[in-house]
Amino acid sequence: MPKTVPNTFPRAYVRPEITALAGYVPGEQPSDPRVAKLNTNENPYPPSPAVRRAISDACERLHLYPDPTAREVRERAARLYDVDPEGVIVGNGSDELLTLLMRAVIAPGDAVAYSTPTYSLYETLVPLQGGVRVRVPYGPDFAIPEELFSVDARMVIVCNPNAPSGTSVPRRALERLAEARRDVLLIVDEAYADFADENATSMGSRHPNVVVLRTLSKSYSLAGLRVGIGITTPALAAELNKVKDSYNVSRLAQAGAVAALDDQESMLAHVARVRATRARLSEGLVALGYELPPSQTNFVLARRPGRSLLPVKEALQSRGILVRYFPELPDALRITVGTDEEIDRLLAEMRTG
Amino acid sequence: MPKTVPNTFPRAYVRPEITALAGYVPGEQPSDPRVAKLNTNENPYPPSPAVRRAISDACERLHLYPDPTAREVRERAARLYDVDPEGVIVGNGSDELLTLLMRAVIAPGDAVAYSTPTYSLYETLVPLQGGVRVRVPYGPDFAIPEELFSVDARMVIVCNPNAPSGTSVPRRALERLAEARRDVLLIVDEAYADFADENATSMGSRHPNVVVLRTLSKSYSLAGLRVGIGITTPALAAELNKVKDSYNVSRLAQAGAVAALDDQESMLAHVARVRATRARLSEGLVALGYELPPSQTNFVLARRPGRSLLPVKEALQSRGILVRYFPELPDALRITVGTDEEIDRLLAEMRTG
Repeated sequence: MPKTVPNTFPRAYVRPEITALAGYVPGEQPSDPRVAKLNTNENPYPPSPAVRRAISDACERLHLYPDPTAREVRERAARLYDVDPEGVIVGNGSDELLTLLMRAVIAPGDAVAYSTPTYSLYETLVPLQGGVRVRVPYGPDFAIPEELFSVDARMVIVCNPNAPSGTSVPRRALERLAEARRDVLLIVDEAYADFADENATSMGSRHPNVVVLRTLSKSYSLAGLRVGIGITTPALAAELNKVKDSYNVSRLAQAGAVAALDDQESMLAHVARVRATRARLSEGLVALGYELPPSQTNFVLARRPGRSLLPVKEALQSRGILVRYFPELPDALRITVGTDEEIDRLLAEMRTG
Repeated sequence: MPKTVPNTFPRAYVRPEITALAGYVPGEQPSDPRVAKLNTNENPYPPSPAVRRAISDACERLHLYPDPTAREVRERAARLYDVDPEGVIVGNGSDELLTLLMRAVIAPGDAVAYSTPTYSLYETLVPLQGGVRVRVPYGPDFAIPEELFSVDARMVIVCNPNAPSGTSVPRRALERLAEARRDVLLIVDEAYADFADENATSMGSRHPNVVVLRTLSKSYSLAGLRVGIGITTPALAAELNKVKDSYNVSRLAQAGAVAALDDQESMLAHVARVRATRARLSEGLVALGYELPPSQTNFVLARRPGRSLLPVKEALQSRGILVRYFPELPDALRITVGTDEEIDRLLAEMRTG
């Protein structure tokens, strides 16, 4: 390896706003397959077998650029969600769609409001774009706080169902917010909606000020493929397309997404298993003395109000079970709904621990 | 399909700087396999067979998020280019790396300088970030213009070998520019370097102010997979990582990239074929009266000074051969080096046309 230059000077080329940022810290991704990964809300079941075949077929034309408009994915999504395909935009994960929205909408100093605790990536993306974070704390019931109806902002984000609480607000509440706040762009982040009793996806096409985000990472078991889907109006989709890289979704991601969306049966079967295991996990944790907001997702937030759960997290980790601990929520652990075997192992360890 | 909202109002939520942009227009991507696609500089040969196997294996764990640091790809690239893996960053195509660089370095009003004609994406990305484009025209020899040594800018981009001219400047010239311009971040976009007689890739690790961009799209025949590689200092890579989405490179892209980088033999064999066909294509075009700057890429720029080649482009298109025409270079066509058969067909059509 050649001698490299000193390690600090190159930062001078970077904007001070960026050097001042800490950057987003994703959950751990261990390579040991014996570890029970209950920390990043992945689906424990495999994707539709049709996905692998579609990806293998798509390898035939890997030397050619992908469709920059991801037309086939948009058409499948439009049919599924009963919306206009021209209002659908496909991203390299829904994280990329959040980034595109920030870049298209937020100018330096613009406020982005959201209720906390929520998906911590928002905390990273807003200052990255020079925006100002406005955090409106959730009450104990995790309903939409009244303050979101009046807060001064250019964008409001509602993660629904919400992470890390697992709770959801009714579609009617979101409709009311969208109607009341025609002055802001409302982002409804529905990453977990397939695990919930209802969704608000079609709102994206019915309101001029709403974008709904979906992902194939969770319910479709495709976190490793990176496909997110945005539903909005054709006019707003056209503006977002100006900000996105032309070839942002690979041939393999497009082919896999089409196959996954075409196999609703496989997705729904896995969602049903996760929901059943979620009920077992919730009962087991309540029996152990934990408090749980009702989960509409593939994870639960287990709380012991006033007591730090860092030792529990570390004890589990030492026994090969990863759960998510957030320093800002020290009396809670976010636990992904794994397989029944993983959940049995977790509950057994928590009982003895 | 539900009734959707009017088509124009949603643009009000978007920043005026974005609505004013036209957006980048990529080359056409026809789905008819009989079309000779000589318009977007794809490699006509398939990627290493190991890529498909690696992708198929990676499908086993598609329900899990990918490694956010793309460690294995970085290690392979670091060994290949003899640089520090901590200074390597992997992107969803090198286009994404360009976007990350703009976001990390360019504040509103900052100037980005580059010689023209060059990769037209720079023209889109700079105003997207609120930067100012400074175009320094190439002379007829396509050497680095003297003005780049003094132009007031925060970032200078040199595409080398350059598109659409196909020409390259010597590594020593780039070293001189990097030494002379410690006040700017110098981006050396080496998308086509594997088709050239030399490259400057290791410069990225030896200068505090240089980032070199490579891609697997061209020489490795993986335009459909979306993998770009940036080589810089560890300090600058750390800042760029703050701007990138955590999971920007899918499991399939990482697995395919590792397999491709591990099979240099396959890549080099295809590059050798392209270079041989490039010589034949160049001779054929010269015999037809075209002027060609010497190409170090997988395409040639065929010129008829003072004469519009739009009719030639359209005549070829009507016979199922796509080449690239740029309105700002009306007396030129950019022609990708396809297979020998495709080039024979092209030359035959041009002779009779």
